[in-house]
Amino acid sequence: MKKIILLGATGSIGQQTLDVIRANPDSFRLVAMSFGENIELGLKAVHEFKPELVAVKNREIYDQIRLNIPSNCQLTYGHDGLCETAAYHKGEIVVNAVIGSVGLIPTLKAIEAKKTVALANKETLVTAGQIVTDYARKHNVQILPVDSEHSAIFQCLNGEKKESVERLILTASGGSFRDKSRNELKHVTVKEALNHPNWSMGAKITIDSATMMNKGLEVIEAHWLFSVSYDQIDVLLHKESVIHSMVEFHDGSIIAQLGTPDMKIPIQYALTYPNRIPSYESERLDLTKYGQLHFEKIDFDRYRCLKFAFDSGKIGGTMPAVLNAANEVAVNAFLEDKIPFLKIEELVERALEEHAPLFNPTLEDIQEADGRTRQFVQSLIN
Amino acid sequence: MKKIILLGATGSIGQQTLDVIRANPDSFRLVAMSFGENIELGLKAVHEFKPELVAVKNREIYDQIRLNIPSNCQLTYGHDGLCETAAYHKGEIVVNAVIGSVGLIPTLKAIEAKKTVALANKETLVTAGQIVTDYARKHNVQILPVDSEHSAIFQCLNGEKKESVERLILTASGGSFRDKSRNELKHVTVKEALNHPNWSMGAKITIDSATMMNKGLEVIEAHWLFSVSYDQIDVLLHKESVIHSMVEFHDGSIIAQLGTPDMKIPIQYALTYPNRIPSYESERLDLTKYGQLHFEKIDFDRYRCLKFAFDSGKIGGTMPAVLNAANEVAVNAFLEDKIPFLKIEELVERALEEHAPLFNPTLEDIQEADGRTRQFVQSLIN
Repeated sequence: MKKIILLGATGSIGQQTLDVIRANPDSFRLVAMSFGENIELGLKAVHEFKPELVAVKNREIYDQIRLNIPSNCQLTYGHDGLCETAAYHKGEIVVNAVIGSVGLIPTLKAIEAKKTVALANKETLVTAGQIVTDYARKHNVQILPVDSEHSAIFQCLNGEKKESVERLILTASGGSFRDKSRNELKHVTVKEALNHPNWSMGAKITIDSATMMNKGLEVIEAHWLFSVSYDQIDVLLHKESVIHSMVEFHDGSIIAQLGTPDMKIPIQYALTYPNRIPSYESERLDLTKYGQLHFEKIDFDRYRCLKFAFDSGKIGGTMPAVLNAANEVAVNAFLEDKIPFLKIEELVERALEEHAPLFNPTLEDIQEADGRTRQFVQSLIN
Repeated sequence: MKKIILLGATGSIGQQTLDVIRANPDSFRLVAMSFGENIELGLKAVHEFKPELVAVKNREIYDQIRLNIPSNCQLTYGHDGLCETAAYHKGEIVVNAVIGSVGLIPTLKAIEAKKTVALANKETLVTAGQIVTDYARKHNVQILPVDSEHSAIFQCLNGEKKESVERLILTASGGSFRDKSRNELKHVTVKEALNHPNWSMGAKITIDSATMMNKGLEVIEAHWLFSVSYDQIDVLLHKESVIHSMVEFHDGSIIAQLGTPDMKIPIQYALTYPNRIPSYESERLDLTKYGQLHFEKIDFDRYRCLKFAFDSGKIGGTMPAVLNAANEVAVNAFLEDKIPFLKIEELVERALEEHAPLFNPTLEDIQEADGRTRQFVQSLIN
């Protein structure tokens, strides 16, 4: 029975984590959780799973629900509450599925408390990869990927030696606009952008998938998760998303992980690693139903955000934090219909040009770069 | 430095094993070898690699070459010589690449002498899977696959637990006639049959690939190598042969091994396992060059030999030995232009119908079934 702490229970990954816990009551127990503003889904989870500790976003929500939770459930709120939850003494593994850079400090708190971290929060490694991986090494804590691509690579590395790895091959679906030319991208709408061909995900990540910033952030994450240089990471356009990613070894052999577009499989793998348990409910992959799988080279001129991500990652220091902050503000503006789609990459580019990176940054350096970038990009939007 | 014994040095796998040894003089040394009738290639290998012990097919060849080998090389011949070579005291791993059922006893001798066996000889496990795997277990010896499909599965199982395996998925190219209807198969020639689309292999295995008996024999081998039931083995038509095979785990995740059609990669893996070493000479797989990979369900009516193999495997006992013997005689007759292509499967079917299987057979039972089947099928040809 593994005791789980779930941060971000009402988001897409959070809800699917609850599905996995629900389907395997003999293997998992939810001991603590957090949620943001979705009170209805949050309370539903609290009443179903009866965690001992629950953190909500702020005092307002705390006041609103505190009389409406089971008596043996302790309620807390805000960033401190989130950190307290991440370090809850009874938890063994923390699934960090909060969205945005708010996920960083709770990850560090979980590491400090010697908990395995199943990481679905991209920003943690993108903005502070060096600090987080150093911290995990220092506390001898393992960071397990939840993302389907990184889970795939992690599975492909099973039983293999690091020195045999030649390169990681991240597959990319190309997102909702993969068949559109750059010219056609000028006038796409938010609704079109949110219609991802393969995966059902949150809004931010679906837009990131259309710009391929998502893949860029994954490249930076892969760099930190698997300690490989950026020259050892390739991206391959594979529109069916059936091969979730691959590893090429130096003997020329490639190991790939395949599956249906069901996030419950990688989530469950992170929770059961190094073991696997049956998923009776997951649909099985039938390659004959696809008939064909397609592969194409990535065009970095078509997907400029991916290029920016590689460049920022190679520069390092505070640069990836700037990339991420600029993208968050820009995507938000697009989702609010304030800017056209192609303006996202333009704003990111402007922010990167503007920034003079600091190397070996502290958390404060990163937070400052993040804050200043947000302000700068916001000023370009208004 | 791993000390290698190579049985069958002049065949396709044997020659590629020598390529691997030649390319990695710091990792491997050939200490003993055997060859059959190809004196030219055999002597070339003897002079290049200077093994300490060499077995040739018969006394005639022995007499012909004995004055023509290095002075510190001991020469022997016949089945006894082959067995002596398989057990040569300085060898650590035996690559068994002899063709046909003559490969069986040397495998047992190698196991007895506590040598790891890298098995490329299909007949060993097909005809005597139970005896060989029991013997390997008793002597605590590991049998490593060399065949690309089994090597793929073996690599996919790296770091995984046996109880997590749901099924093995062997891929099949469909062979040289995959685009022909059964009607068109009636009049195909030997020359057409030998023209395999993906792999360059020996004549017997190329014909087996066209009838898909090859895949059938691999199914039986997989059953023994990986201790799975026949219900846990599926075959998938995949004409590019890029995915060499896959394993589906009970959580729904599939791990696949991919590569170019280069047997040197699985041969080298068997020699270096559990490590990998760089193959500088092997071409790297570039999926974008393929663009597409295709997958189709297997039609057991189109590929009747595959069906016969599954059926024989499930029946067990002496049945797979009969399948194999009948096929060897029939393929030989086809290669000698004595029977048409479709007669191969017909002869195999007749042999299986004729045979009353013995269960838990001894080696003698197997050899008798083998001999009687050969006689029977031969009688149907003449």
